[in-house]
Amino acid sequence: MSEGLKVVTIGGGSSYTPELIEGFINRYDELPVKELWLVDIEEGKEKLDIVGNLAKRMVEKAGLPIDVHLTLDRQTALKDADFVTTQFRVGLLDARAKDERIPLSHGVIGQETNGPGGLFKGLRTVPVILDIVKDMEALCPNAWLINFTNPAGMVTEAVLRYTDLRKVVGLCNVPIGMEMGIARLLDVDHSRVRIDFAGLNHMVYGLDIFLDGVSVKEDVIQKLSSPENSSFVKNVEGSGWEPEFLRALNALTCPYHNYYYNTDVMLEKELENYRDGKVRAQVVQKLENELFELYKDPDLSEKPQQLSERGGAYYSDAAIRLISSIYNDKKDIQPVNTINNGAIPSIPAESAVEMSCVITKEGPKPVAMGDLPVASRGLVQQIKSFERIGAEAAVTGNYDTALLAMTINPLVPSDKTGKVILDEMLEAHKQHLPNFFQPTKN
Amino acid sequence: MSEGLKVVTIGGGSSYTPELIEGFINRYDELPVKELWLVDIEEGKEKLDIVGNLAKRMVEKAGLPIDVHLTLDRQTALKDADFVTTQFRVGLLDARAKDERIPLSHGVIGQETNGPGGLFKGLRTVPVILDIVKDMEALCPNAWLINFTNPAGMVTEAVLRYTDLRKVVGLCNVPIGMEMGIARLLDVDHSRVRIDFAGLNHMVYGLDIFLDGVSVKEDVIQKLSSPENSSFVKNVEGSGWEPEFLRALNALTCPYHNYYYNTDVMLEKELENYRDGKVRAQVVQKLENELFELYKDPDLSEKPQQLSERGGAYYSDAAIRLISSIYNDKKDIQPVNTINNGAIPSIPAESAVEMSCVITKEGPKPVAMGDLPVASRGLVQQIKSFERIGAEAAVTGNYDTALLAMTINPLVPSDKTGKVILDEMLEAHKQHLPNFFQPTKN
Amino acid sequence: MSEGLKVVTIGGGSSYTPELIEGFINRYDELPVKELWLVDIEEGKEKLDIVGNLAKRMVEKAGLPIDVHLTLDRQTALKDADFVTTQFRVGLLDARAKDERIPLSHGVIGQETNGPGGLFKGLRTVPVILDIVKDMEALCPNAWLINFTNPAGMVTEAVLRYTDLRKVVGLCNVPIGMEMGIARLLDVDHSRVRIDFAGLNHMVYGLDIFLDGVSVKEDVIQKLSSPENSSFVKNVEGSGWEPEFLRALNALTCPYHNYYYNTDVMLEKELENYRDGKVRAQVVQKLENELFELYKDPDLSEKPQQLSERGGAYYSDAAIRLISSIYNDKKDIQPVNTINNGAIPSIPAESAVEMSCVITKEGPKPVAMGDLPVASRGLVQQIKSFERIGAEAAVTGNYDTALLAMTINPLVPSDKTGKVILDEMLEAHKQHLPNFFQPTKN
Amino acid sequence: MSEGLKVVTIGGGSSYTPELIEGFINRYDELPVKELWLVDIEEGKEKLDIVGNLAKRMVEKAGLPIDVHLTLDRQTALKDADFVTTQFRVGLLDARAKDERIPLSHGVIGQETNGPGGLFKGLRTVPVILDIVKDMEALCPNAWLINFTNPAGMVTEAVLRYTDLRKVVGLCNVPIGMEMGIARLLDVDHSRVRIDFAGLNHMVYGLDIFLDGVSVKEDVIQKLSSPENSSFVKNVEGSGWEPEFLRALNALTCPYHNYYYNTDVMLEKELENYRDGKVRAQVVQKLENELFELYKDPDLSEKPQQLSERGGAYYSDAAIRLISSIYNDKKDIQPVNTINNGAIPSIPAESAVEMSCVITKEGPKPVAMGDLPVASRGLVQQIKSFERIGAEAAVTGNYDTALLAMTINPLVPSDKTGKVILDEMLEAHKQHLPNFFQPTKN
Ligand SMILES: [Mn+2]
Ligand SMILES: [Mn+2]
Ligand SMILES: [Mn+2]
Ligand SMILES: [Mn+2]
Repeated sequence: MSEGLKVVTIGGGSSYTPELIEGFINRYDELPVKELWLVDIEEGKEKLDIVGNLAKRMVEKAGLPIDVHLTLDRQTALKDADFVTTQFRVGLLDARAKDERIPLSHGVIGQETNGPGGLFKGLRTVPVILDIVKDMEALCPNAWLINFTNPAGMVTEAVLRYTDLRKVVGLCNVPIGMEMGIARLLDVDHSRVRIDFAGLNHMVYGLDIFLDGVSVKEDVIQKLSSPENSSFVKNVEGSGWEPEFLRALNALTCPYHNYYYNTDVMLEKELENYRDGKVRAQVVQKLENELFELYKDPDLSEKPQQLSERGGAYYSDAAIRLISSIYNDKKDIQPVNTINNGAIPSIPAESAVEMSCVITKEGPKPVAMGDLPVASRGLVQQIKSFERIGAEAAVTGNYDTALLAMTINPLVPSDKTGKVILDEMLEAHKQHLPNFFQPTKN
Repeated sequence: MSEGLKVVTIGGGSSYTPELIEGFINRYDELPVKELWLVDIEEGKEKLDIVGNLAKRMVEKAGLPIDVHLTLDRQTALKDADFVTTQFRVGLLDARAKDERIPLSHGVIGQETNGPGGLFKGLRTVPVILDIVKDMEALCPNAWLINFTNPAGMVTEAVLRYTDLRKVVGLCNVPIGMEMGIARLLDVDHSRVRIDFAGLNHMVYGLDIFLDGVSVKEDVIQKLSSPENSSFVKNVEGSGWEPEFLRALNALTCPYHNYYYNTDVMLEKELENYRDGKVRAQVVQKLENELFELYKDPDLSEKPQQLSERGGAYYSDAAIRLISSIYNDKKDIQPVNTINNGAIPSIPAESAVEMSCVITKEGPKPVAMGDLPVASRGLVQQIKSFERIGAEAAVTGNYDTALLAMTINPLVPSDKTGKVILDEMLEAHKQHLPNFFQPTKN
Repeated sequence: MSEGLKVVTIGGGSSYTPELIEGFINRYDELPVKELWLVDIEEGKEKLDIVGNLAKRMVEKAGLPIDVHLTLDRQTALKDADFVTTQFRVGLLDARAKDERIPLSHGVIGQETNGPGGLFKGLRTVPVILDIVKDMEALCPNAWLINFTNPAGMVTEAVLRYTDLRKVVGLCNVPIGMEMGIARLLDVDHSRVRIDFAGLNHMVYGLDIFLDGVSVKEDVIQKLSSPENSSFVKNVEGSGWEPEFLRALNALTCPYHNYYYNTDVMLEKELENYRDGKVRAQVVQKLENELFELYKDPDLSEKPQQLSERGGAYYSDAAIRLISSIYNDKKDIQPVNTINNGAIPSIPAESAVEMSCVITKEGPKPVAMGDLPVASRGLVQQIKSFERIGAEAAVTGNYDTALLAMTINPLVPSDKTGKVILDEMLEAHKQHLPNFFQPTKN
Repeated sequence: MSEGLKVVTIGGGSSYTPELIEGFINRYDELPVKELWLVDIEEGKEKLDIVGNLAKRMVEKAGLPIDVHLTLDRQTALKDADFVTTQFRVGLLDARAKDERIPLSHGVIGQETNGPGGLFKGLRTVPVILDIVKDMEALCPNAWLINFTNPAGMVTEAVLRYTDLRKVVGLCNVPIGMEMGIARLLDVDHSRVRIDFAGLNHMVYGLDIFLDGVSVKEDVIQKLSSPENSSFVKNVEGSGWEPEFLRALNALTCPYHNYYYNTDVMLEKELENYRDGKVRAQVVQKLENELFELYKDPDLSEKPQQLSERGGAYYSDAAIRLISSIYNDKKDIQPVNTINNGAIPSIPAESAVEMSCVITKEGPKPVAMGDLPVASRGLVQQIKSFERIGAEAAVTGNYDTALLAMTINPLVPSDKTGKVILDEMLEAHKQHLPNFFQPTKN
């Protein structure tokens, strides 16, 4: 890394890219990126050109010596990379719409990460990630893989179980969003708040909350279960919890917990969106189209304000913070997805967990806080089983394994309904599931 | 125990009692019961008299020197007992009807053991069991507590966590029923079949199946997932599984798994029963009324055939087998609820599990088969969390804790719906929940 | 196995063989051996002929239809075998003498199983066992490997870690000897005594002791620490324990514990034997020579009394009991070496342990008794580490790994002394350590 | 803590105190100590006066507003304290001399922390620490206990097992000394080196070594096992390791490992010291006498150079670094003794371990690095068993338990020799072992 870093972003044509660029620009002092390669596939070429040219204009305006490369040739890009970030979406938003809509058409929440939709996102994504890892092992064996692609838990689990790469981190903006939400609730600067996170991706709990190093959990739980904060809570946490439930749980939930502890309410909302043609993928598609219209403007040379509505807030910040802490051996604490190593005793030591880690030059190391509270242990274990079996199905292309993953998902009401959804989704995503449809497999 | 055993049956007025008597009569040679005390409470006096007199006639007809005592005085009965069996039902079938019907009135399966109904059965039962244990520690400290009262998992967990009694076994007829069902499927005598059981009460899996000591699991799974056996399977296993699901699960399910892997189908059935006034408690109530009419017949001196329809088949056999194996140090293998001791590594060592155990004079010792299959680990953990928090709520009478137990139950769709059910059920069962309603508690 | 069993005994020329034959004869009713193949290597041909012919005479006298085959062709023997027992000794007693004498020449106890001598026995034996397993996988994939060859713990660990064979059991006569000793101490028949064993081979503890199913541990510990039983205790347990130590340990020790809890006393004894040319190997060599003289007698057709002095008492009984319980799916409890599966939580689940197991047709299953007492946990862990690293050294032929195993052994006082012993022993055993001396390895 | 901290040092008359004072002075900017209470007992009054007055002169010279109080009244001192440090020595150096000399008189290394000497140091110290904790719970329930008193592992274990105090940290200068030694070996500034520590107090391993965040373990192991560094290594690591052993161990040892992996060499040295009247306690006593002579000089107002020879180098720095990181919520990584919480899976979660922790305002949190290497697991477990049983003996005053702790210590060759040493040491330390000699106990 002697003369500046080479960073490769796979899925570089994503609408998120300007945020990432902004991040690299803002932290150039501590993170001297020399080359940034934005990689995409043939179908994404147009978007890559649009967003890539915006990236170049942003760098130029900032006056920084970062070379931005646009390419469809992944292997050339990966050669000698220092950091590889992945933010691609196999099948684009169209596929996500199917992930969300097909389950809903059978009365089941799709949930594009830890639900039946997430299973299919995993089936499409895991083989591509494993392919990238294979390339990395050959072309840049010392590089870090920073994965933003969902389902980040299943993807990290798959890399840990099915490859030898250990320099992998799964990243999500949910924990940092929770910390910022709590800072707003307490009306203090984010830097003064720290949460002890433990759990899995999109199934993470805040086990304790500190303001200037002193626990304020009791106070925060009190505030979160108070009616006067209900609109705030709905905004941060979903539809709000029953105060008695939250007090007994005695931990912060993440927004995705609504799918599991608030299933009927969420289902009703989602069905309404389904009927209105406004499931999240559809809303996002519209936003993205608008964003790309903006990005095309040759006079635009900074991240447009509208991107923040897209929902990926803090992603850039989380990603650059992480890369910088690794690069600079900062030894600060950040919540990421990494190997458990016993930090959560009821989860296998070799599995992926999402928890507060010390970030060193050799990567994140989980902070041991003891086992999860009894109340959260079951649901976390269930999603972990889902992630493991989902990853296995993705790798083997085995139909039975896929049905097992589908059926044990907490959102799926039966093997029968699971099979109906599975069959319909396999058909719908056929072209992106070669492991399931190639004649030689399984 | 020198001159014959003293056995105490709490809830002796139960309609099951004739089966138990029959068991003691049939195994008198190996299990010399000298005194059998049937204990009940004031409200159960009439039934105790009816069934108790039948018991006496049965013993007399068998010509055995067993003294049958009927009493409302539990402490006199417990003095110097060798075995204490519990089969009482706090609030009788009326309470069970509420456990089943109130959740259904909100579109939720009641499930009287591991569902919201089971939570309330636990809240009513655990304090009574702990009271019995207190009496036992004073009056018969060397006796064994053989508990049939549901929810047997939560009850065993509560005894292990909140008392010092270690001579406790939870007993269920489900595993033995599964073995007999598989024997019928294979068309062989039950004695030739053995299943490796592991899991929790009413959440137990058959991890392997042996015929004459040789694994026939693959064959059995094949048979169970074949259409030609579908009517058999529906009978034994519920509504039948998707073959691909069962093959991937690669383990036997118990009938109660239908509530969790077949939720929508079961809910539909139960709602129909609800509308027809035919939930299980109501059906059983009718059967019991008929049984007690039969029991009254002074000429009846054996277990009437109709009892087998009641649903407790093999209970007597399972109970007497267990007591006899303890008494005779038989060292045979039986599936019971006992302390885990590490046999299932992902469950706390000090928690109750239901699994194949060697039965010795000093009680059951679990057989270590390694951890549960990944696919079952999540659901089992979730029910274990439910049992632990439910037991805690029963002991403390804490409302918040009860709502937490309710909400994390896999059948309950949200904290909001959970709270509605909780409030309505607390009110309905008020008189049997002194820990929740006494002014001094909590 | 339809028409009688084929049993193969590798190291068939051993002086123990007549005991084994006697066992097969005595249990022929329950264990119908049709073919018994005694296999040895070229150097053992003479002894094989002598003992093999005695075996034939014994079978003939018993009038049983067991075909006894003598062969140097292991692969022919293994074809379609049902049970393979191993009792060979690489390098014969000569090698054992070196295992014992070289360490003693540096003031260190040799201990031919869990000491520095045992390391070398393992280095010589493990590769041969792995070779046998390879043959078995090809020629009799359904057979059971019943290993008596020491160090049985390291050998079982090696098979579990470096092969796919799971039908392997390590067998030792120490636990059965402890039970028989306790029966004599209590002056009751052996059949009435049962001990809960847990630990490792030659490092096994009796955690509880039952007479007719009732714990008599306190009483036994009292007796064992009473001066009036000191001569008995010395005989069974070695040189006797300090009563206060034994009471606090609150468990039965095995004779080999003397090497670890009684090191200075044992060392003194052994040094005396060393100076007198009477270390165990030398004593045994003399006994064996005498035995083989007896065996040659064409009129001898039964096991001579003198064999019992050889020290392998109960081996035959333990072995045949085990084979019969597997064959007949007896489900009785026997102490053997097998995979831990979580039964001892502080030992890795996949490691070998020696403990009370239920013996079924599919092999031994450990009985979960909870973790080891705190006081034994350290020493057991240390020997387990020694076994694992010793096995690794045997497989890889890596010098550094061998020195690590040597140095962490509790009997070896330093890496320096360890290296001196290691170098001298490597040289002395050169011809039996091809992994260390072949030019291509490591 | 609003207006400056109150720090209480128990054993304030120690010769180490000037180093501590220097530390507080040097870090006053980040750690505003307002009151420093030096507490000692009657027998230590003279030394307390001498060193306390030096402390006052040092503070005065530095011109800082720190109030130094000297007192024999512990309870007054503890009132509302923020940090309590303990550096007392029950029985003074005289007792340590017995800890070292009595075992040596029987040919056994005394080892004043993890050997038989350490057992006695624990038996004397643990009850006093538990008394201090009782006072703290009453008088300063929010204070941190920073314990330097040896045996720090056993003491921390005792506080975790026998009190409710969780704000306890055990501190040792060994790890920081190892880091500084490696920095010297690499000829770089200490700040650039970081070691991943894991194990127990005085039984800690460096599992990895980083220079500027990049692992240099292989290189360091190479250097440490190279003859050209032998004098350096002897100085840092003891007598030097066999290169092959160190390479296979593949971890840094701490100096105390010499007692366990280098026992015969160490014993010889210690026996020589014993014969010459120069065991460590005797050497230190002489140094201390000289130091106190220096301390008396009314013109001395800084830490004298000679203190560094005393052997407690970096203690002050380690202590103040730790206190400051807690006070300032620094979230840096430091090696300390604290609750394991699963970070080392083969050690009980609730036990004390010494490992790299993130230091936050709510104390140290271990960094999960996975289980210990197989080779170290046994010895660490054995010392952990010794610590637990030693702590139990200290609390109960039970003779049998004390003999058990003695016998399982790896340095003690038998229960017989252990008993001889135990009896002689109990007698020698009688006055400081009230739990063993009060008529009412045990
Ligand atoms: Mn996310
Ligand atoms: Mn049941
Ligand atoms: Mn043996
Ligand atoms: Mn220290």
